[in-house]
Amino acid sequence: MTRTVTERLIADHLVSGEPAPGNEIALRIDQTLTQDATGTLVMQELESMDLDRARTEISVQYVDHNLLQSDEKNAEDHEFLRTASRRYGLWFSKPGNGVSHPTHMQRFGVPGKTMVGSDSHTCAAGSLGMLAIGVGGLEAAMAIAGHPLYLRMPEVWGVRLTGELPPWVSAKDVVLEMLRRHGVKGGLNRVIEYHGPGLDSLSAMDRHVVANMGAELGATTTVFPADEAVRRFLRAEDREDDFVEVLPGPDASYDVTDEIDLSTLEPLIAKPSSPGNVVPVREVAGTDVAQVVIGSSANPGLRDYAVAAHMVRGRQTDGSVSFDVNPSSREIFADLTKTGATFDLISAGARIHQAGCMGCIGMGQAPAVGQNSLRTFPRNFPGRSGTREDSVWLCSPETAAAAALTGVITDPRELADRLGLDPDGFTLPERASVNTDMLVPPPEPEQARQEEVVKGPNISSLPDFPPLPDRLEAPVLLKVPDDVSTDEISPAGARALPYRSNIPMLAEFTFTQIDEAYPERARKVADTGHFVVGGDNYGQGSSREHAAIAPRHLGLKAVLAKSFARIHWQNLANFGILALEFADPGDYDRIEQGDTLRLTGLREGLPGGPDLVVRNVSKDEDYRMRHRLSERQIEAVLAGGRIPLLARS
Amino acid sequence: MTRTVTERLIADHLVSGEPAPGNEIALRIDQTLTQDATGTLVMQELESMDLDRARTEISVQYVDHNLLQSDEKNAEDHEFLRTASRRYGLWFSKPGNGVSHPTHMQRFGVPGKTMVGSDSHTCAAGSLGMLAIGVGGLEAAMAIAGHPLYLRMPEVWGVRLTGELPPWVSAKDVVLEMLRRHGVKGGLNRVIEYHGPGLDSLSAMDRHVVANMGAELGATTTVFPADEAVRRFLRAEDREDDFVEVLPGPDASYDVTDEIDLSTLEPLIAKPSSPGNVVPVREVAGTDVAQVVIGSSANPGLRDYAVAAHMVRGRQTDGSVSFDVNPSSREIFADLTKTGATFDLISAGARIHQAGCMGCIGMGQAPAVGQNSLRTFPRNFPGRSGTREDSVWLCSPETAAAAALTGVITDPRELADRLGLDPDGFTLPERASVNTDMLVPPPEPEQARQEEVVKGPNISSLPDFPPLPDRLEAPVLLKVPDDVSTDEISPAGARALPYRSNIPMLAEFTFTQIDEAYPERARKVADTGHFVVGGDNYGQGSSREHAAIAPRHLGLKAVLAKSFARIHWQNLANFGILALEFADPGDYDRIEQGDTLRLTGLREGLPGGPDLVVRNVSKDEDYRMRHRLSERQIEAVLAGGRIPLLARS
Repeated sequence: MTRTVTERLIADHLVSGEPAPGNEIALRIDQTLTQDATGTLVMQELESMDLDRARTEISVQYVDHNLLQSDEKNAEDHEFLRTASRRYGLWFSKPGNGVSHPTHMQRFGVPGKTMVGSDSHTCAAGSLGMLAIGVGGLEAAMAIAGHPLYLRMPEVWGVRLTGELPPWVSAKDVVLEMLRRHGVKGGLNRVIEYHGPGLDSLSAMDRHVVANMGAELGATTTVFPADEAVRRFLRAEDREDDFVEVLPGPDASYDVTDEIDLSTLEPLIAKPSSPGNVVPVREVAGTDVAQVVIGSSANPGLRDYAVAAHMVRGRQTDGSVSFDVNPSSREIFADLTKTGATFDLISAGARIHQAGCMGCIGMGQAPAVGQNSLRTFPRNFPGRSGTREDSVWLCSPETAAAAALTGVITDPRELADRLGLDPDGFTLPERASVNTDMLVPPPEPEQARQEEVVKGPNISSLPDFPPLPDRLEAPVLLKVPDDVSTDEISPAGARALPYRSNIPMLAEFTFTQIDEAYPERARKVADTGHFVVGGDNYGQGSSREHAAIAPRHLGLKAVLAKSFARIHWQNLANFGILALEFADPGDYDRIEQGDTLRLTGLREGLPGGPDLVVRNVSKDEDYRMRHRLSERQIEAVLAGGRIPLLARS
Repeated sequence: MTRTVTERLIADHLVSGEPAPGNEIALRIDQTLTQDATGTLVMQELESMDLDRARTEISVQYVDHNLLQSDEKNAEDHEFLRTASRRYGLWFSKPGNGVSHPTHMQRFGVPGKTMVGSDSHTCAAGSLGMLAIGVGGLEAAMAIAGHPLYLRMPEVWGVRLTGELPPWVSAKDVVLEMLRRHGVKGGLNRVIEYHGPGLDSLSAMDRHVVANMGAELGATTTVFPADEAVRRFLRAEDREDDFVEVLPGPDASYDVTDEIDLSTLEPLIAKPSSPGNVVPVREVAGTDVAQVVIGSSANPGLRDYAVAAHMVRGRQTDGSVSFDVNPSSREIFADLTKTGATFDLISAGARIHQAGCMGCIGMGQAPAVGQNSLRTFPRNFPGRSGTREDSVWLCSPETAAAAALTGVITDPRELADRLGLDPDGFTLPERASVNTDMLVPPPEPEQARQEEVVKGPNISSLPDFPPLPDRLEAPVLLKVPDDVSTDEISPAGARALPYRSNIPMLAEFTFTQIDEAYPERARKVADTGHFVVGGDNYGQGSSREHAAIAPRHLGLKAVLAKSFARIHWQNLANFGILALEFADPGDYDRIEQGDTLRLTGLREGLPGGPDLVVRNVSKDEDYRMRHRLSERQIEAVLAGGRIPLLARS
């Protein structure tokens, strides 16, 4: 049978379900990747599950986000992650070892394997012929614990590549072309699978660039075949034995198709403030630039730094430009240094930063208000840089380096002509400076069980999640309108984010964007718990699971709403909060904040069918409600959430 | 006449006064150095003085402190400093070019010259035979404007060095030995002058280490002779033409004397949390270490990094240690990279950060609570690391590298024995990778006058400083007890510090540690101004001039106190606030917050003598007061401060 790479990867890992687009399927997960910003919660979830040891083939905990350490909280998180990794049998990648995605690709990625990661750019591993999907923390924790990943089977979008990229045009321009054509929702419910003769001229790291920013197209993930380019990559990393060929069948057919002739591409750039605002560089040439940053998982390869170093060698950045370089991994930084490129970058005026995500996730490098910053990063959402009124553009390393030299947006082809630059004027080593010393393997199980998990004062355990009672009688503590987002339920930002490892502290911020007094009211009725009433699209926006855990910690038992946003609805079920929809949306208007509601017979009622009745004790009225929970989810909600359910099993 | 180097430097620059210990003298200042944390205020002061162009031989504005850029404020400061430097005729050292002290030494330091700098470690330039003194921002601004520096003539403390340092003992151990012997107040009102045959084995950069931490001894400054070691240094920097020999006369005599036989020294370490807590490393060997940091102006030389790289080459840092390396200057980073040492450090697990002060001034790299951090920095005051309950130790690069490898405090001699390390196993280049491209010279005066100084939204101008009225009748808005510090008058910390360039915003924090409502009350009586009444030792602690400027901006006209701390008293005079002491301290008790006080005939009364009478209108009482202002200071206070006085002249 002739299949796409995507279909083959899915077939090889299918645990249940029929893989036709839209159907729920369950996949066995071989590897996991977690980073520090989401990983501390994952570790607390493993602790709550009473996990003895990771059940995947490989699970790796990276530290790449919170590297600035403005106070003790980051260092405490690092120590917590280091010791928890030892306890639960994960590899630990030390701070300074680099960004998870390129590091994982270099050291652990294996063609044909599945991976989930608690980071939206996990899809970058598709460059090696893996099926790699970004998920929430609990899904990552469950995968570590050996559970399958449930998802709706996506469509497969075959993008055929032909031709070869012209000089000074590179992989970033390929994915920017995809964004130019299809926008930031073009990939929704799809796996993007690249194929065709154009692949031959793209290295595995070039493909990483394209796969990484599949996230910006909204795709479930991106896959490439595992071909000779992948074999070459693994050979350079001393891991040729890990190579497995994964190719599409000769007559593989795709649900959706597209084609790009690489030879027709030109340097592209995404204007502020969306990765979808793509235009040719020449159309915006001459615009003033104050900052240029090279790095991140979107342009992580040695080549991406080497081409920039080649362009600036013996030259000097413009006097008004800050030229920042973030090595993506320790290994790439070492090779960059060995080849002399680091020296060239320093000499040209670069500020070399430690290996990690840095400015890409707003950890430093914030530009001045309104000044243009050109970055090789994947995202330029407003304010993501740390500056509220920022002006961030996304481009290739070639376009970035050109602007660093001239102080204005510059087509690198034009600059290369002017300076007589040779596009092949730099060489890359055949072999990488492989050095795994900053990857700490987990100890043997016997020793791991002796490990003390070190929790600094800012790191709590996950709270207990007792089962849902059979009968609820409790007040409505908050009634909110339509479209309340998870940002309003549990805010991010500099005030709240440092407490991401500390649910009791983080809970104090719950709903305070809407009602400052909510946490205090909730504590007063801790004995009975409480209800929240919502409108349409309750819980839209960010996928953060804190928006379920934090109110749950404050006693939230059930949300009655007109409708729920998909991911938050899943998170509520995961953390044992009952999500009920009004059968008659008009009943929303009949409930007032402060009313006491009663729900009875839940243990039999929930499995019995979708219909339930809520009694408004204060108003002496009944409302018909519905739930949409699957059997699996009902079991989880009754148990108090998936964590206690797992701990029990 | 046979003189000390100190006396010779002073004699060559004496403008007025008799240079006997304790006398006020005035010195011509050849060079200035400002950094970004204090420099934004200096630039605002130059603006307020209406300065056309710097009148020194060389003035350089560095950007080395606020490099993290967590939001737009740092980048705005950098742009303000860049454009203000162009306007006022200063050199501008771009972010990433390095720490002011080593960079200045490499590019601008000249034997025999005087310098002031708005940074307490300015004294490091004594390594080249300069007289270099750390001062407040306004003193630096005045020096830039061509005014002499006034100071009390210090004693000269001759420290004779003999012998040679043993292997694995280095310059840091020399100054730690001074701190071990004399503590953090040992150098008060003294210039430390090193001399003797032991100097021959100390390079100019070794001397920088010793001179830099003279600040920790409390010394006015430290000086070394400009001898053949200085000539060699300048030759390596392509500046041999700048060499001038400055040696003590053969019979130079010192006010105080001491002697150190270098051959008897051993590795030393300052325990938490004072540079004066010095013990031999062997006494604390075996203590767990979680973090090791190399860098800062206290160990800035290529040799200091190279010896660490030599020790860790081919080895790996301990799994539980974060090993952080902060290159001190772009030039040193380039040479470190060219020699292969950067590669060795990366390979051994180092996190390489951008060139700058970084963790030394609490910009990142904060350790976890209670975990030991070994640093080659100059200071380990509690909380300076960014972690309130920190545990920071100060040591040499040799001792730091040893701990990075072992994970515990380790005598580097013992480790070297164990590993068979050759103390001479690394070489340094004869010539530095001189590259001045990140030092932007000021434009010619004609063009400079056209420069637009770019002020982002967070950068204000200094407020106007109107003259002191002849008659004051105004309320006492605040009465405070003894020992109120400048931290309580104008707080530092993450809340207030970002507004250091913005006096109106910063003023909103004035006295709020004591009384939240003070700023609001002050605004209500803006027409009349107001008084503050203080106890003993009013204004102790940090030298920050914000503690005078911010309340002055809110209308403070005079402080009546039992006594004043020295530096704050000077700052009050500098910024036109009248500081009066109770002739009878008992009168302090007679005044209540809210009373209205009256002072009349100030324009004649102040020059007329130290005595004044304050009328308490509310209580119908008189209090006798005294001032201790010099003629110069009276003129400044009447004019509204030294800035309006300067602008007028």
